[in-house]
Amino acid sequence: MNPQIIAFDADDTLWHNEPYFDEAQAKFCELFADYASSQEILLLILNHQVKNLPLYGFGIKAFVLSMIESALELTNNEISGNGIEKIIKIGKELLQKPVELLPEVETVLGKLKGKYKLVVATKGDLKDQHRKLHDSNIGHYFHHIEVMSDKKDIDYQKMLHRLDCQPESFLMIGNSLKSDILPVLNLGGHAIHVPYHTTWEYEKIDFEVVHPNFNSVSHINQILDLI
Amino acid sequence: MNPQIIAFDADDTLWHNEPYFDEAQAKFCELFADYASSQEILLLILNHQVKNLPLYGFGIKAFVLSMIESALELTNNEISGNGIEKIIKIGKELLQKPVELLPEVETVLGKLKGKYKLVVATKGDLKDQHRKLHDSNIGHYFHHIEVMSDKKDIDYQKMLHRLDCQPESFLMIGNSLKSDILPVLNLGGHAIHVPYHTTWEYEKIDFEVVHPNFNSVSHINQILDLI
Repeated sequence: MNPQIIAFDADDTLWHNEPYFDEAQAKFCELFADYASSQEILLLILNHQVKNLPLYGFGIKAFVLSMIESALELTNNEISGNGIEKIIKIGKELLQKPVELLPEVETVLGKLKGKYKLVVATKGDLKDQHRKLHDSNIGHYFHHIEVMSDKKDIDYQKMLHRLDCQPESFLMIGNSLKSDILPVLNLGGHAIHVPYHTTWEYEKIDFEVVHPNFNSVSHINQILDLI
Repeated sequence: MNPQIIAFDADDTLWHNEPYFDEAQAKFCELFADYASSQEILLLILNHQVKNLPLYGFGIKAFVLSMIESALELTNNEISGNGIEKIIKIGKELLQKPVELLPEVETVLGKLKGKYKLVVATKGDLKDQHRKLHDSNIGHYFHHIEVMSDKKDIDYQKMLHRLDCQPESFLMIGNSLKSDILPVLNLGGHAIHVPYHTTWEYEKIDFEVVHPNFNSVSHINQILDLI
């Protein structure tokens, strides 16, 4: 493998993210514990998120709007203004969470910098991802950040075109098989999966990935042996 | 002027946008006409938008969340679930508005394509701006779209770095002196102002722009004489 560009997913690849969402959802479930079980509420939020994806895309603002819709449905539109205020607060707290790097991320970036063009390739809120890269203090390892409106084949295709990079010279590293790995393999690129201990329901797939351009490692520092 | 890259702002430069926001705000004012005058309500929304910018950034989802906060404030948290539902609907309608090109935009792009690298450089919701470029049917004139989290000096600087373009080889065209013109001139780039008949309060400036790299035209087809 001799990549020209190495792209890193951000959330749960470079820094912790999903636990913050889980915490936010737990707060929401607590607010509406009188109306449904946590399990039912989590499913309701997910359904609203998925339904809203074509209009809202990914990220925290979309998540907040989907929580509000879930609350309206749960309470049959009887929710109080105070309840809405609490949901907005959950979202604003999420947008201000500290950025905690995953172990050894910085060591790995330090070893790759200068040898490859490194970029961050992530979904989510534009402003929020820029904020997190800034707060992470690892922005200087990267040439730039690409915030993508989705991570399907077509989105990677557009990104590679923009970066003037052939798929075979592109390596993607991330924790989501669905979003970071499969589309890149489909285009003829290389991909390394670095699993995170928890995965958003929407990102789960139920089959095994086998592909000559694919590798999986248990820890990010192991990617150095593969490149 | 011999630009390598010509960037076009999108909203109110390539297609109509502000009138849709005005229409959305008028609907909101009508919903809360019992609580305050339209003028007071518009100011309240603007205040929430500006206050929320550092967390939410630009775009329709941020606008909806700021309308919801405005409604909470207006009603002293007494707003009903139905009221919240109506605000969310206003936002979803905005996200599905048809894209109406401004006159002669396509003619101008047709004359520039192939001679220069054309890009769209816009703020707003990532997903929504991609959607609008797609629906506009003028995507093929552009090398790609840059959705920026803001349009300050630093944001243009990052974009030019990403595009590997020197400021003096960059030309920006847009309707906002504050966002499309001044930061580009500050960096040493070129800029042409094409005013739109109405401007968002936040984008207004109260001084005249005079700069050797600056031009203003009354209609987009006049940029052809300047390039």
